[in-house]
Amino acid sequence: MLSGLTLYALLDVMGTFVFGLTGAMVAVRRGFDLFGILVLSAAVGVAGGVVRDVLLGDVPPAVLVDLWPLALTCAAGLVAFFFAPVIERLDRPVMLLDAVGLGVFAIAGCNKALVFGLGGFGAVLLGVLTAIGGGVLRDIMTAQVPRVLHEEVYALAALAGAAAYALGLAAGLPGGLVATGAVLLAIVIRIASVRNGWTLPKARG
Amino acid sequence: MLSGLTLYALLDVMGTFVFGLTGAMVAVRRGFDLFGILVLSAAVGVAGGVVRDVLLGDVPPAVLVDLWPLALTCAAGLVAFFFAPVIERLDRPVMLLDAVGLGVFAIAGCNKALVFGLGGFGAVLLGVLTAIGGGVLRDIMTAQVPRVLHEEVYALAALAGAAAYALGLAAGLPGGLVATGAVLLAIVIRIASVRNGWTLPKARG
Amino acid sequence: MLSGLTLYALLDVMGTFVFGLTGAMVAVRRGFDLFGILVLSAAVGVAGGVVRDVLLGDVPPAVLVDLWPLALTCAAGLVAFFFAPVIERLDRPVMLLDAVGLGVFAIAGCNKALVFGLGGFGAVLLGVLTAIGGGVLRDIMTAQVPRVLHEEVYALAALAGAAAYALGLAAGLPGGLVATGAVLLAIVIRIASVRNGWTLPKARG
Repeated sequence: MLSGLTLYALLDVMGTFVFGLTGAMVAVRRGFDLFGILVLSAAVGVAGGVVRDVLLGDVPPAVLVDLWPLALTCAAGLVAFFFAPVIERLDRPVMLLDAVGLGVFAIAGCNKALVFGLGGFGAVLLGVLTAIGGGVLRDIMTAQVPRVLHEEVYALAALAGAAAYALGLAAGLPGGLVATGAVLLAIVIRIASVRNGWTLPKARG
Repeated sequence: MLSGLTLYALLDVMGTFVFGLTGAMVAVRRGFDLFGILVLSAAVGVAGGVVRDVLLGDVPPAVLVDLWPLALTCAAGLVAFFFAPVIERLDRPVMLLDAVGLGVFAIAGCNKALVFGLGGFGAVLLGVLTAIGGGVLRDIMTAQVPRVLHEEVYALAALAGAAAYALGLAAGLPGGLVATGAVLLAIVIRIASVRNGWTLPKARG
Repeated sequence: MLSGLTLYALLDVMGTFVFGLTGAMVAVRRGFDLFGILVLSAAVGVAGGVVRDVLLGDVPPAVLVDLWPLALTCAAGLVAFFFAPVIERLDRPVMLLDAVGLGVFAIAGCNKALVFGLGGFGAVLLGVLTAIGGGVLRDIMTAQVPRVLHEEVYALAALAGAAAYALGLAAGLPGGLVATGAVLLAIVIRIASVRNGWTLPKARG
């Protein structure tokens, strides 16, 4: 039986790997070489956490201290390098796992910010930054407008999850339960928005 | 009667709002959805201050602690969302307010750096970074070459204001007076450069 | 006779200047004005070091405290401004000096990280970031995909140099010797890869 901590670590590992995989697949499509694939994989997998740690003053960031985050993104890069044609056909599962990463990173970022003494508002904001940071860097490094700015309900799903987590804790609910529920909320919103083609309104020209 | 502090806070609020507005208008023109508009508005309004705080080691940055900066940029985003066609016709006033933001942020950044013990040179540099940071991020996030690199006397106006502020303080002049004069100097240089089409020389091909 | 320290400082100065020069030349080619040239020159010359210092928590970064790094990049910018046509014809020497900058910055970054208590893995990683950071910012600010992602053996040369440095120190070899050898290794790999057109494999479409 998995304890809450084990579950959480498992989701975190999965999020880093899958975010890395999305970066690696973009690199493969662009025709980057193996090293470029590994770099973009690492950028997407760890950039959100680095931004979070720098803004909290928790430096050096974990990625410079522990081996596992980059080991995971390298593994993701190698998987993309060797199996890109297979993964291309799997875009539904990749989208699902990406939603998991989004939810986990949003709650992980929010949680760390609360531990470091930030108020609820700042913690939610930092959760969103942690969740979307990697993807923004991926798009900037491939000279594209970040998808989060013009497409679908993405950052909003992270925002909902992080806000639910902060509110649940403030209401005195047990941490493991709140974390699980908040992660699931973000995942469900993200997946539902893709399935149903939810969009936000645009300004009139 | 406004005290110096009240005047300063007023200008700071105005700068954050107007910088947010310039980001939001770019987002509207690009056809981003409401959330994208709010994100780009926030990026332009607060990014310069975040960079300043990170480089000074003053983390977490104010935007994660206080509510008002993001409240202001959200307000700017909503104004752009609902009234974009009206604002398009107002580009002269928006340019004027943008010049105000530039001057205020340059002096605010320089001042904070001096308070944190930086020398005059570093403080002036950080003032310029604070003033131009948001605009640079706006342009990078919309996949454009930052305007500050190839257009008009923009960063130079911030540089002149910040340098005047640091020199005035070093000369022992009263702080409120120096701040006001330095902000006005940056604003006047910026506006004059737009009105008169001032440009800097380019290298011969 | 140069002591090790003098040699090292000389290489560091050369690296900052040459990295600044590569940024300035891109700015000249893009038709940026003088200020844009100086800004891009500064970005390429100092950005890697700023990222390194922020990630190590050593703030404010050196560029805000000492005058010489920006003085060097400004000098590089002026050289490009006045002598761009001459430099265009010298691209072989510029490439050689750029390789020197790459090697020096990789080892300087790795060394500083070790001094700040990072493990070998993180120190090597930070060395690579220090070496490639400026070039990545240059490419992002000119709305291009960073060259390091899709071209040649560039970051890999920095990685080899930094890793050799960390391994050599761990093996108890004398610091000056290890540093010199590691810098030379990075330079040789970089130059050899350009001369021989070495590339890394790409994923099959």
